[in-house]
Amino acid sequence: MVAWNNFDKLESYKALNETECVDIAKVLTADRVKNYSVPMAAGMVYNYAAKQVDDKILDLLSKLSDEAELVEKYQELYNGAVINTGEKRLVLHQLTRGQLGNAVEADGVNKRDFYVEQQNKVAEFANKVHNGEITNEKGEKFTTAVQIGIGGSDLGPRALYLALENWAKKNGCFKMDAKFISNVDPDDAAAVLNSVDVSKSIFILVSKSGTTLETLTNEAFVKDALAKAGLDASKHMIAVTSETSPLAKSSDYLAAFFMDDYIGGRYSSSSAVGGAVLSLAFGPEIFARFLNGAAEEDQLAKNKDIRKNPALLDALIGVYERNMLGYDATAVLPYSQALSRFPAHLQQLDMESNGKSVNRFGEQVDYQTGPIIFGEPGTNGQHSFYQLLHQGTDIVPLQFIGFKNSQIGTDVDIQGSTSQQKLCANVAAQIVAFACGKEDENKNKNFEGGRPSSIIIGEQLTPEALGALLAHFENKVMFQGFVWNVNSFDQEGVQLGKTLAKKVLAHETEGALSVYSDLLNI
Amino acid sequence: MVAWNNFDKLESYKALNETECVDIAKVLTADRVKNYSVPMAAGMVYNYAAKQVDDKILDLLSKLSDEAELVEKYQELYNGAVINTGEKRLVLHQLTRGQLGNAVEADGVNKRDFYVEQQNKVAEFANKVHNGEITNEKGEKFTTAVQIGIGGSDLGPRALYLALENWAKKNGCFKMDAKFISNVDPDDAAAVLNSVDVSKSIFILVSKSGTTLETLTNEAFVKDALAKAGLDASKHMIAVTSETSPLAKSSDYLAAFFMDDYIGGRYSSSSAVGGAVLSLAFGPEIFARFLNGAAEEDQLAKNKDIRKNPALLDALIGVYERNMLGYDATAVLPYSQALSRFPAHLQQLDMESNGKSVNRFGEQVDYQTGPIIFGEPGTNGQHSFYQLLHQGTDIVPLQFIGFKNSQIGTDVDIQGSTSQQKLCANVAAQIVAFACGKEDENKNKNFEGGRPSSIIIGEQLTPEALGALLAHFENKVMFQGFVWNVNSFDQEGVQLGKTLAKKVLAHETEGALSVYSDLLNI
Repeated sequence: MVAWNNFDKLESYKALNETECVDIAKVLTADRVKNYSVPMAAGMVYNYAAKQVDDKILDLLSKLSDEAELVEKYQELYNGAVINTGEKRLVLHQLTRGQLGNAVEADGVNKRDFYVEQQNKVAEFANKVHNGEITNEKGEKFTTAVQIGIGGSDLGPRALYLALENWAKKNGCFKMDAKFISNVDPDDAAAVLNSVDVSKSIFILVSKSGTTLETLTNEAFVKDALAKAGLDASKHMIAVTSETSPLAKSSDYLAAFFMDDYIGGRYSSSSAVGGAVLSLAFGPEIFARFLNGAAEEDQLAKNKDIRKNPALLDALIGVYERNMLGYDATAVLPYSQALSRFPAHLQQLDMESNGKSVNRFGEQVDYQTGPIIFGEPGTNGQHSFYQLLHQGTDIVPLQFIGFKNSQIGTDVDIQGSTSQQKLCANVAAQIVAFACGKEDENKNKNFEGGRPSSIIIGEQLTPEALGALLAHFENKVMFQGFVWNVNSFDQEGVQLGKTLAKKVLAHETEGALSVYSDLLNI
Repeated sequence: MVAWNNFDKLESYKALNETECVDIAKVLTADRVKNYSVPMAAGMVYNYAAKQVDDKILDLLSKLSDEAELVEKYQELYNGAVINTGEKRLVLHQLTRGQLGNAVEADGVNKRDFYVEQQNKVAEFANKVHNGEITNEKGEKFTTAVQIGIGGSDLGPRALYLALENWAKKNGCFKMDAKFISNVDPDDAAAVLNSVDVSKSIFILVSKSGTTLETLTNEAFVKDALAKAGLDASKHMIAVTSETSPLAKSSDYLAAFFMDDYIGGRYSSSSAVGGAVLSLAFGPEIFARFLNGAAEEDQLAKNKDIRKNPALLDALIGVYERNMLGYDATAVLPYSQALSRFPAHLQQLDMESNGKSVNRFGEQVDYQTGPIIFGEPGTNGQHSFYQLLHQGTDIVPLQFIGFKNSQIGTDVDIQGSTSQQKLCANVAAQIVAFACGKEDENKNKNFEGGRPSSIIIGEQLTPEALGALLAHFENKVMFQGFVWNVNSFDQEGVQLGKTLAKKVLAHETEGALSVYSDLLNI
């Protein structure tokens, strides 16, 4: 049995607090860039040469990993322990892409088999849509898949769809457009519905509980539009939900695909939640390749040697930056337009998992936990908020992502280089600019440097690379949650707002809330 | 003459540091919500009842405003002083929407007249495109406007286009689609070009200097695509640039519209930079209405009474939160899907303006300046990062925005309320949940409260409201820059990365940078 202790009770905590961080500008040599690099899945690498660590600090982080039994906790997780203590649930999202340890039985079934079965059901359904066995009432092929979901049922799948859309078009495996309705703002659903041919659209209703207010409201919105178009909604909708939800056996849907309570919303992209829309958009083979990349990355996370475990190493360095160096935020900066919404997914993944003030036993912790996560693609960010990152009064650690090759391959040679080369040159330059800075007598043009970053580099953003990226960050967040001794798999912080919103709608408010309601004309 | 002093040299700085902030949960009464509210332009209000201030702190903030001569500095700015000390330039973006004070002469012309002239030229051009006087080579009407620009030439105009797209469609003034190419990632331009009919597209090249590498590269990308389609690029492109740039008199463009050095990129949305694309998309009348909203808000910013000056008040409370309460970030949370990219624009506006460590004289400052800005639309954010905002270990001040009415007006009534009511109920509920919290014996379900927010409430997101919102935040950032004594109008922090990227592309690197370049295959 592993021991669950608060971070500040560990010996490594004290030892790490007594270290001095590294002056990156002084140590960032060619050799260090070559050596401070860990292979990831799908041929990628995680390079941490520009982080404020050295071998001494890495050894202490390794001790921390051992002392906190991080890899053992991961083992317990994938072997089916009740890691989500708040909700008393197993945590099995890794099982949606591979068998990592022992067979896990729950609800009377082998859970790996269950997830594979759902994946196969989705694949079969998607193939029938693609080959015209499943059509609209007129026998016409569906051309658009519209996901109705919010939070984890939206951000992850949307980010992944955008990440592979152009790759799929280029590689001849693009099957149909995907659109997303998430916000309860009626203009969201109305605008999406105005942009599609509803008669040729298949709607994917995604809600684990089957009770998410926004999602059910948007379902009604869509059904209303289908009815007004004289269409039978039950011929246009499928559900992704849990077997116990009210949606599971309803005749309102063409088909239902299942997840379960062991897959948190923000960890559900590799379950049927991402599987349905991605298999419809790109074909089940592409979704399977995405899962293979994630599975390969999950295997790497089992390694106890932190220098060979990119997610674990990334997690530990992040903890060092948060708790020892006092940095409050991390910027995620993919040099890939296809990853435009990947930071928004990571924002949920990280902030909803580890933005907690109590440990897994419900006791207040005395140290900082999850940081703020934000980001935009480079080079766009360079022309936006990088000013603050370079010369602001706070230091923000940076997570770069870059690929050697573009997805579409169309390019132009201007001033002796292609756009792809310019893109890559910029991210290389930024790492060194942030780390090393540049002295200038004019203090307005002075760059202090000492601003840490890491970079994940891949050949191309393929389905496998995307799966590996997703799993890397899921596992990083998991390991950090273990260090902070928080439950990364519940989200009690979202409940109070829901409760109060219901009161507002029922006009059961008084005092300040009542006036705010009046001001907003409710 | 006003005096430019560092914040920590002011008497108010000391006085503010000696105050204790307010326990919002205790003071948030119905009366306070009614009273802590300031009218904005376009019928909006700025409500700050859930901020950690009381009349005593507000009086001190008022003294700070007087002592730092904030309104006088604004006066100097719009009357044409050299406020951008780093680049020795006037700062005249407010003049693009109205005459605020004295006539400003520069470059031998009256600058207000110059901006109006450009606005009129854009309007005339847009009208000719709309009525078919200006067409493609075949005499067909243009159907799409594609903006090529990055940073301020992209984020602001894109956010504004998205903000009004559905409103314009609903109100019968939608003229043509707009698309945006910004990133030097070749997949950005390639994907946009694949999504439009280039033969019916008009491309707007936006670069003040005419030398922005990303933008010129993407121009070449577009010209290549036009040539491959057998089209004459000069019949498909217009330029928005400064009169002194290489683009200004080139025969490569159908027309050129001018801005000048007194309009910073991130402040250029109300100049021809935003004017061209918005006038093409929605018609010049809509752009003019947007400018009117901004001009009205600019007038409010002249009021020395902080309780009647929403931008000034917002700025001062933000400074109090940053420097006295030690909060490092601010989240911008519009409950409006149409404002989906408005936080990304504010992120540039704020972080690029005030993310500085030196004052306007190039001397290091000893206090924190601009915070991190991030955000996503509600209710989506509620299902994402709000967990950390409610229960994380750091406090993040929140800027809500909400509207009583949707833009499209299509809605459904589910469980006794419309989607718009649900949307508004959620933002009202969140303010109170964050401020007041809720005790629970189960600490995992406990909400500490004390998390400050303000809200801007409008009737509907119209062109006028959007203009007022934009000006509000521009003026807020300006006032904060005055308090911190930084130059909010240059961006030296972006230079080093550019210089190093050029070295990488010229293969003039050594050491670490050379290895990074190799890893990225440059």
